[in-house]
Amino acid sequence: MSAADLQDFLAREFPDISALGIIVERVDEQTITLRLPAESAMIRPGGTISGPTMFSLADVTVWLLILAQIGPVALAVTTSVGMNFFRKPPPGDLVAEGEVLKLGARLAVGHVRLHAEGSRELVADASITYSIPPRG
Amino acid sequence: MSAADLQDFLAREFPDISALGIIVERVDEQTITLRLPAESAMIRPGGTISGPTMFSLADVTVWLLILAQIGPVALAVTTSVGMNFFRKPPPGDLVAEGEVLKLGARLAVGHVRLHAEGSRELVADASITYSIPPRG
Amino acid sequence: MSAADLQDFLAREFPDISALGIIVERVDEQTITLRLPAESAMIRPGGTISGPTMFSLADVTVWLLILAQIGPVALAVTTSVGMNFFRKPPPGDLVAEGEVLKLGARLAVGHVRLHAEGSRELVADASITYSIPPRG
Amino acid sequence: MSAADLQDFLAREFPDISALGIIVERVDEQTITLRLPAESAMIRPGGTISGPTMFSLADVTVWLLILAQIGPVALAVTTSVGMNFFRKPPPGDLVAEGEVLKLGARLAVGHVRLHAEGSRELVADASITYSIPPRG
Repeated sequence: MSAADLQDFLAREFPDISALGIIVERVDEQTITLRLPAESAMIRPGGTISGPTMFSLADVTVWLLILAQIGPVALAVTTSVGMNFFRKPPPGDLVAEGEVLKLGARLAVGHVRLHAEGSRELVADASITYSIPPRG
Repeated sequence: MSAADLQDFLAREFPDISALGIIVERVDEQTITLRLPAESAMIRPGGTISGPTMFSLADVTVWLLILAQIGPVALAVTTSVGMNFFRKPPPGDLVAEGEVLKLGARLAVGHVRLHAEGSRELVADASITYSIPPRG
Repeated sequence: MSAADLQDFLAREFPDISALGIIVERVDEQTITLRLPAESAMIRPGGTISGPTMFSLADVTVWLLILAQIGPVALAVTTSVGMNFFRKPPPGDLVAEGEVLKLGARLAVGHVRLHAEGSRELVADASITYSIPPRG
Repeated sequence: MSAADLQDFLAREFPDISALGIIVERVDEQTITLRLPAESAMIRPGGTISGPTMFSLADVTVWLLILAQIGPVALAVTTSVGMNFFRKPPPGDLVAEGEVLKLGARLAVGHVRLHAEGSRELVADASITYSIPPRG
């Protein structure tokens, strides 16, 4: 699936998340980049981004990255998340860069880094595991 | 701080979260119980509860538990979360039971279990670490 | 499997670990208690216990707990570990108390708490996930 | 501290670990590479490497990486570990590549990837947090 395919899939299957303004910038076989624009409703006045918002962004990043590899298996579910919060996100767009760590028949694991646009300092990172349903 | 104190603190400092209908049921020196009523706006039609919603509930549970011990230090920040998702939450109220694992001068760690009202089967659990700002 | 069965299984299949002196004290359908005696070769002179030793103890605790439920499936493998270290273990026996969080067809998750004999203060805790091989 | 400095520090302060044959290959301000030779006593006959051994290797990798930045503060202690095990390590040397995620005044976080020499497939990864003692 291409970045445009993933954007369409998100809009169709998860209109709530799509409405937040998340942009799928690019995807390849191992990595993906998403962007949460500063104008998103997920970002509170003053520019602060809550922990749950960063969790949502990290989760959708790895989820789309997995789907990009295995196709639109809408039922892949998150089984575990390990997430670190390093610093308050500065104002501006928040960028999520995801990477496949493992893509197995039953489990897929991805790692995602969140940083502000134009900064290399990490705001947060997460390691997320998905269970892939048996395919018949 | 008592359960009523925590409920007031939440309403005053975090009206967004408070508006979701989270109820602080009880608290003591080691444990706390919160409830997310089935009528909450956090719960989607059909009764499904999203991962980020469960993350939010777990986070606020441990955060209030820590505050109950050390007083209303609004600046305690989440530094890491390890969370497992075990099964889809059944319809109905979601109950969060938190427990202090460590309360140090610089770090506090709590564990929280989420289950449906009336069921002992875990829906999710999380281990959450907070950094406590130096007190002067 | 009973505590004695588990102890035998450990001695037969994992003589290295068994030789460390780990004792399976009790087990039931949800919980297990192991003990690492202060005389164990895993405990260094002076009574200090290394992080990897605590990791090993936590891992074998949850692994035996899962086996107690599903039988001696020697191939169950650890897929992830989230572990917190709270304080230096005091001298003396180290006790590990494990609890089943989820026992599914494909994944099993357990939580384990480590504390010194006679103390309720936690030394460490861990949440450990095992992949269960398909049974035919 | 250079790779040679770190190797000396390890030999002097932690002769047990040093004796396992871990080699500090290189280090810079953000990353480090360690190697566990296939001849190491940590590797069992047949080439299998236990979970605790991989835990030890990951832990010492991030610990040396932090020390390389802040100097030989022997008291920095591990506070939490999130580790995934992806596949059985193939025979041969095991390489650990560590990277600083955060270096704060109180907490430092590193990420480490383990893979077999000559392979890009990950065997395991870990995110490890250290508490840094107050410096006077």
